[in-house]
Amino acid sequence: MTKAFVRIFLAVLVLLYGVLVQAQVAVNWVSVQPGVWKAVVGKPESISLLKAAGVSAYEKGFSQLPSAAFPLDKKEIVVRQRDGKIYLRFPLQKEEKLFGFGLNFQTVNQRGRVLHLHVDHYGGKDNGRTHAPVPFYVSSGGYGVLVDAARYMTVYAGSAVRVATEHPPKLYDRNTDKDWNAQPYSDAVEMLVPAQGLEVYVFAGPSPMNVVQRYNLVNGGGCLPPKWGLGFTERMPTLSSQADIVSEAKLFAQHDFPLDFIGVEPGWQSMAYPCTFEWDKGRFPDPAGFIKELSALGIRANLWTNPYISPKASLYVAMKGLSGSHTVWNGLVPDVALPRARQLLKEHFLKEHINIGVSGYKIDEIDGFDNWLWPDVATFPSGYSGEQMRQVYGLLMQRMTSSWFREKNQRTYGLIRASNAGASSFPYVIYDDYYSHRDFITALINSSFAGVLWTPEVRASESAEEWVRRMQSVCFSPMAMLNAWADGTKPWSFPEVEGAVKDVASLRMQLIPYIYSTYAQYRWEGKPPFRAMSLVEGSGGQDLKDQYMMGDNILVAPMFTGEKSRKVYLPAGKWYDFYTGELAGENEVIAITPGLDKIPLFVRDGGIIPMMPMQRQAPVPGQKVQLIVRHYGKANGGFVLYDDDGVTFDYEKGACSFVTLRVQRDGNGNMAGSVSDPQPGKPYGYLKEVSWIFMTK
Amino acid sequence: MTKAFVRIFLAVLVLLYGVLVQAQVAVNWVSVQPGVWKAVVGKPESISLLKAAGVSAYEKGFSQLPSAAFPLDKKEIVVRQRDGKIYLRFPLQKEEKLFGFGLNFQTVNQRGRVLHLHVDHYGGKDNGRTHAPVPFYVSSGGYGVLVDAARYMTVYAGSAVRVATEHPPKLYDRNTDKDWNAQPYSDAVEMLVPAQGLEVYVFAGPSPMNVVQRYNLVNGGGCLPPKWGLGFTERMPTLSSQADIVSEAKLFAQHDFPLDFIGVEPGWQSMAYPCTFEWDKGRFPDPAGFIKELSALGIRANLWTNPYISPKASLYVAMKGLSGSHTVWNGLVPDVALPRARQLLKEHFLKEHINIGVSGYKIDEIDGFDNWLWPDVATFPSGYSGEQMRQVYGLLMQRMTSSWFREKNQRTYGLIRASNAGASSFPYVIYDDYYSHRDFITALINSSFAGVLWTPEVRASESAEEWVRRMQSVCFSPMAMLNAWADGTKPWSFPEVEGAVKDVASLRMQLIPYIYSTYAQYRWEGKPPFRAMSLVEGSGGQDLKDQYMMGDNILVAPMFTGEKSRKVYLPAGKWYDFYTGELAGENEVIAITPGLDKIPLFVRDGGIIPMMPMQRQAPVPGQKVQLIVRHYGKANGGFVLYDDDGVTFDYEKGACSFVTLRVQRDGNGNMAGSVSDPQPGKPYGYLKEVSWIFMTK
Repeated sequence: MTKAFVRIFLAVLVLLYGVLVQAQVAVNWVSVQPGVWKAVVGKPESISLLKAAGVSAYEKGFSQLPSAAFPLDKKEIVVRQRDGKIYLRFPLQKEEKLFGFGLNFQTVNQRGRVLHLHVDHYGGKDNGRTHAPVPFYVSSGGYGVLVDAARYMTVYAGSAVRVATEHPPKLYDRNTDKDWNAQPYSDAVEMLVPAQGLEVYVFAGPSPMNVVQRYNLVNGGGCLPPKWGLGFTERMPTLSSQADIVSEAKLFAQHDFPLDFIGVEPGWQSMAYPCTFEWDKGRFPDPAGFIKELSALGIRANLWTNPYISPKASLYVAMKGLSGSHTVWNGLVPDVALPRARQLLKEHFLKEHINIGVSGYKIDEIDGFDNWLWPDVATFPSGYSGEQMRQVYGLLMQRMTSSWFREKNQRTYGLIRASNAGASSFPYVIYDDYYSHRDFITALINSSFAGVLWTPEVRASESAEEWVRRMQSVCFSPMAMLNAWADGTKPWSFPEVEGAVKDVASLRMQLIPYIYSTYAQYRWEGKPPFRAMSLVEGSGGQDLKDQYMMGDNILVAPMFTGEKSRKVYLPAGKWYDFYTGELAGENEVIAITPGLDKIPLFVRDGGIIPMMPMQRQAPVPGQKVQLIVRHYGKANGGFVLYDDDGVTFDYEKGACSFVTLRVQRDGNGNMAGSVSDPQPGKPYGYLKEVSWIFMTK
Repeated sequence: MTKAFVRIFLAVLVLLYGVLVQAQVAVNWVSVQPGVWKAVVGKPESISLLKAAGVSAYEKGFSQLPSAAFPLDKKEIVVRQRDGKIYLRFPLQKEEKLFGFGLNFQTVNQRGRVLHLHVDHYGGKDNGRTHAPVPFYVSSGGYGVLVDAARYMTVYAGSAVRVATEHPPKLYDRNTDKDWNAQPYSDAVEMLVPAQGLEVYVFAGPSPMNVVQRYNLVNGGGCLPPKWGLGFTERMPTLSSQADIVSEAKLFAQHDFPLDFIGVEPGWQSMAYPCTFEWDKGRFPDPAGFIKELSALGIRANLWTNPYISPKASLYVAMKGLSGSHTVWNGLVPDVALPRARQLLKEHFLKEHINIGVSGYKIDEIDGFDNWLWPDVATFPSGYSGEQMRQVYGLLMQRMTSSWFREKNQRTYGLIRASNAGASSFPYVIYDDYYSHRDFITALINSSFAGVLWTPEVRASESAEEWVRRMQSVCFSPMAMLNAWADGTKPWSFPEVEGAVKDVASLRMQLIPYIYSTYAQYRWEGKPPFRAMSLVEGSGGQDLKDQYMMGDNILVAPMFTGEKSRKVYLPAGKWYDFYTGELAGENEVIAITPGLDKIPLFVRDGGIIPMMPMQRQAPVPGQKVQLIVRHYGKANGGFVLYDDDGVTFDYEKGACSFVTLRVQRDGNGNMAGSVSDPQPGKPYGYLKEVSWIFMTK
């Protein structure tokens, strides 16, 4: 009796302790990859972001990263379970900046912000509602944190101040003190996750780039697009017929304008919003012939769709029991978490599109907004809630559709409106209707902290100036796209800048060797191809919103309409003008006044840029192009040129080349370039003869 | 063995059934008041909106309402528990409009909207984040629904479409059909409440006004302000001293401008944002003398404060253990759900303010926004979560502070920035920094569906026109307030409209008998004093955003800057111009072109408007004023004139008068007015001699 009483008493004490200290949870950090630790909190749900993405870490990629210890004081990481939710707290140092928390459009440093991470279209405010509200942040201090839960979580990114903090903010009297601040100093990131459990990851650096690399490598490494995905693309007006599209492809050839793939918009379907996924017999009487005709012109077709199934679709009846409780535009929302649902879709999409040569999809309308999408009260036969589905639908669609191509050993490259953590390896680029050129560039910068790709697509413009400025930007982005869906514009729609537009599209094509090698870094090292300045070594905690890096060597400083000049921050080391090779500056902010015809580009000292002659389309398997290698500055340089067949996954079995380009000063002080030999028998699409151009005199 | 097996088998079947039908919950509707039913779903939480408000129904008020049956088909109300949340669904008919869902600013009909009900400042969009996100809606079909849960709930107010609906929307092809609609027809209101349990109420009509009455009566009946609360008020510049304020009061007297109470802004405290709740010795060397001096001028003082306790406050140490885990502007957030916390605050506020004559408070900054307020990760010693506290803090503050005055048998009338369901009886008016005149009027209209009061306060204006138009509106609102906190404006700041401003302020004073009687309706019948047009009998489902009723008889159609004319909807029955008594129209939309000097007002046929001679301050207890009764139109009329001492709660013990004013046509066709005798011994502040004015010739 007494013993039992003591036991009960002790149990009550433990219970009370739990309640009194607000259910603080002991956290066990387990190393899962070099420099990556994971903790399991509570009982994680059967779906999460990474579970939805379903990718495995690219383990080999970690070998080249510096070893690193757990980057935070574990005692300062506080986890609580309370009120059916998980409360997380991570410490912050005084000078830290925070990058990430998904695809934000207006801000780069998120410290001090409150974000409600929620998949949605971007509504004009960086409040957490965006196409890819990735719950991952990178500290300028060189570590990162990912919260893996498919829930709407609330983030206080250094805005919440605890009574019990050891770093209290200074006290001011608003009545009399001008230094009073509406938002006092906070020493922590706090997050509220409405889930019974989750997994949380900590990534070591030491540099912010190393953090991002580890994040992308955990997510399988970055995606390597097919080469044709790096060429120019135009999306056709919505009601174009197959004849219209073939004519358009020929028109591009007449204008000698690059074009690798073409977007076929809603009108290809017999009904859209909701969709049938079936060709419209009137506008597309012969889909296979259409694709073949395009293919003969070297052009691939990318089909627009949303996933909502029309009652008129042949799939409707079979999918009805495999879909959510609510409709979108009268269409079923397929529960793509169900294998049977995926199987039916696969059979249809392969038969109707992929097996006749369709190269990929633009998967639209899966982000928001709330009035259109399935509501949070929707339920799905897989058992996942409307909220969970909202957070992972973009991931599930990317995973499903890309697997169809992968099974055919064929790379795809498409567009997606919703994504989330875990997407690094998916061959999809995010886009948006919101049309601020400036904010599109900020999104491009932020994409590098979120493991996603982003295109600042060009649609209409109000002036020739805006047109050329937008075209210049999009050619320095993951997808060089004109979206003429609504307005039927063409690259030459503004004759006064036709030359400049063609120049930059041509430059994009000439840079394919460099860009493709940059994506190879993404694939194997986890380095994002388009990068925030803060990911450049020696840049400190830069949170610039209007300039970025394309790969290791090219700094891009886009111009915006109405601006004749701009400021550019050049990191430590000398930087050179891309076009002239002249010294531009070092570790300083310079002012430039470029003309309308060029996008300002700068190359680091010793920077090597492998290029090729202009051609309208990306090299095809077996094709050999000439290598034109530029070198900038006075320093020696090295560059790993990557190549493979450009279209299959054979590279994963070793069918690829890594060739080292080197520039060194010889005994006489002259620059000389050298190329290592490609491994025999591996795909390598360059002629042996290399043209070396030393840009800096 | 076999029996046990059968039992287990049956249990599994039941469980499976629960899972398969998605945990549908049987709902038991219990009648709680005439025409009001309540259902308990799951295990309701220990705090809810109505629990926080802590009021009892005013049961007597129901006796005058028509009896009514349960207004919906119970089978069509679907409740589910799933994923730790409550899913609610209520049916909608084709033509129904939905009013309410809190204090919206831009829309009156909420059908088709998605709202995330969340206490916050108003951010420019009707998305559910507002000062009073009351989870109550009124259908134009004559019933209402209240969901009583202190949680952020998501409402799909006729936007979500189920696959299994019996009323599917029409299917369109967006490719080709111009009638395609982004938001197809929905036949239900659906709500997602992240709570383990809740209580839900259904209110019968038959009219929308009856629904609102029942709602307000469940919440104790509406508030009856002190008479002085209906007079004019100005809030002083923030750093005003006690001498400044007394001077200002005298200046109003010199200008012969109404002034009943004056707002004392942050500078009265020795520190603000966070607050000490202590007088600043420099600016207020003699608080008691200051209040006495104002009182001698007939003026009451209302003190601004926010609840956040400065480390410099004498209360700080004692309150530290009684406050939330997080600070706001370095101040403690008192956990006013704790009796001990309330007791300490009460002792301080009584001693320092109320016992020396302070008449009330403006309780600021308890709504949002997220970057300032306590975060959702905050915890409180009462055990309530940050989210729950966010939803109820305004209610708790109103309840606590008004109880202090009630215990002294003294009415108060103040300002509050956050409220929610259950607040009808609290003597507080909501205000906002957002400064759109138009949207302020829409908020006033919507306040009538939410059981709250709202003032379209006047601050700065860009022109004399804007100034007078705003002044005209605010004089036809629950609180006639000039907020000169930031800019030091005065009613006569625009000399070119000084006369018109004074005219409307004087009209406000003259209308006190009518307005006070209108508030008496609110108190005892639950009829909101300022009302949407859809609450007027025979107005159908009007969702007008720019005109409203003050009481039963006066239709207010405010003018906005830049507009010389406007349209006014006049409901069924004849309506007359308030100023001239001329017929304006009936059951039609009229166009008017009023001058700058008047706010358009219309009176219904037979409408009786009791008024009094202009005086700068509301009548004081014992004072007798002359009654001037206007009658409009040709019809007979009746009006219940209410009176009491105007300052105490003695009316609750019967110390009040209800006097009937009647106008009837005699045998000769002449209009004649009559007044019933007030009950002897009851407070009645009018002279026996009544001046009758028959406005319509």
